[in-house]
Amino acid sequence: MREEATAFVPGHITGFFSAHPDDDPTEAGSRGAGVTLTDGVEVTVEPTDEAASTIVLDGTTLEIDAVETVLETLAVTARVEAESDLPLGAGFGVSGAMALGTALAANRVFERDLSWNELVTIAHGAEVQAGTGLGDVVAQARGGVPIRLEPGGPQVNKLDAIPARARVEYVTFGELSTADVLSGETDRLSAAGKQALSRVVEEPTLLSFMYASRLFAREAELLTEQVARTIGDVTEVDGQASMAMLGETVFAFGTGLSDAGYEPTVCATHPAGAMLK
Amino acid sequence: MREEATAFVPGHITGFFSAHPDDDPTEAGSRGAGVTLTDGVEVTVEPTDEAASTIVLDGTTLEIDAVETVLETLAVTARVEAESDLPLGAGFGVSGAMALGTALAANRVFERDLSWNELVTIAHGAEVQAGTGLGDVVAQARGGVPIRLEPGGPQVNKLDAIPARARVEYVTFGELSTADVLSGETDRLSAAGKQALSRVVEEPTLLSFMYASRLFAREAELLTEQVARTIGDVTEVDGQASMAMLGETVFAFGTGLSDAGYEPTVCATHPAGAMLK
Repeated sequence: MREEATAFVPGHITGFFSAHPDDDPTEAGSRGAGVTLTDGVEVTVEPTDEAASTIVLDGTTLEIDAVETVLETLAVTARVEAESDLPLGAGFGVSGAMALGTALAANRVFERDLSWNELVTIAHGAEVQAGTGLGDVVAQARGGVPIRLEPGGPQVNKLDAIPARARVEYVTFGELSTADVLSGETDRLSAAGKQALSRVVEEPTLLSFMYASRLFAREAELLTEQVARTIGDVTEVDGQASMAMLGETVFAFGTGLSDAGYEPTVCATHPAGAMLK
Repeated sequence: MREEATAFVPGHITGFFSAHPDDDPTEAGSRGAGVTLTDGVEVTVEPTDEAASTIVLDGTTLEIDAVETVLETLAVTARVEAESDLPLGAGFGVSGAMALGTALAANRVFERDLSWNELVTIAHGAEVQAGTGLGDVVAQARGGVPIRLEPGGPQVNKLDAIPARARVEYVTFGELSTADVLSGETDRLSAAGKQALSRVVEEPTLLSFMYASRLFAREAELLTEQVARTIGDVTEVDGQASMAMLGETVFAFGTGLSDAGYEPTVCATHPAGAMLK
């Protein structure tokens, strides 16, 4: 057994999605598209002699169901310590990153000899079961600007991507509960998500992704007043912005938010998926 | 139209494989496993007013069928200029890297609006048609330590990976013609390749990959005298080495070749697939 292992998992902003429930959490998931970010989460796993596992995020001990499920599935007791560039609950896939990073690092520390797809499947299933995400984990495992053509874990899904890189700016005004939205009525949302996906499949560019995402946010009636105003401000300076699904967060490519007078955090699309350090 | 675009494609050493011919070059390919490398090829594409495309590798103009096919498929005339860390024809997937890098960069320069999978399919099909490789392109598009479970381009194949990173050392003694080996009798080789794949699927670790690769090289009768001697030298100092398929090249994880008294080139597994710069 090793002393510890660390994995980096990029953040992920979903631009649009449709929900695809299934009794098997490794087959459930979402279609949609998003951007992975150079801002992400670094997860370190080490064995512990304590009776129960501990999860620490940015110095605070907390319970994250998806992470606990991953540890139980791997049958290990560990201390998981994560440092995140991104806030939890604001649409950046932090819980998915924690689950995937834990799977990768724990597999290494405890020498579980599982394959990449097996680890992604475990993390994806755990996240779906917890109700905190449907597509972040598989997107974060891939990197780049992933298009999720078919839902589910890597054994069943189908991914493509927009072959592009970009500077990404974002501002966060607060949290939205993914679990609340996903447990509510998702028919309207999923219809809008399917339309958005058709558009991006037909024209897989960053510009068409942004158009499709903005239309989706409006049609799915997820825009908050603050988010709608900020997207409008960016449009007025000829920029492109949309809302992160699901958080009170606005993201833009290039210098859209700066040009509109905001003071955004700046990062970029991440060319790689999750990785052991 | 942009002035130019550049893509980096990691090198790829195949440890073992089985050949899977098909009339459709996008469905043909190989099963097997290998390592992508931080050493790779940087490919820059720019439009040209000349009547024909030009391909330059490390300052030398040459003809690379796979690259020409990619340019023809995208219906563009371009100057392709590549700088490679790795020698051509020695088992590092340089021709695959040239084809994939050209597809990614040309798509951007000429704004062809194709998706990632479409570009990988074009490069993979071009490489298979040229007879210079069967699995490099899809591995190089993925990055890491890819396992090719099902052959073909991204529309039909199935990939997994060994979730690990490593320092990689290699020495090259000369070239082997991939086209010559692939056009010969491949039954024995493919039987050995299938056995090797079973082993790695059962235990997806770097150590089992190296065992499987060494056994494959011996059973497929591809070892040259020099390569066999060098692998033996590494084994004697308790290291792990095998032969790159297909080149007169020996690669090792960690410090295997250095420990055995060789002066290898040193790089590492590449955590990401091909990327635009």
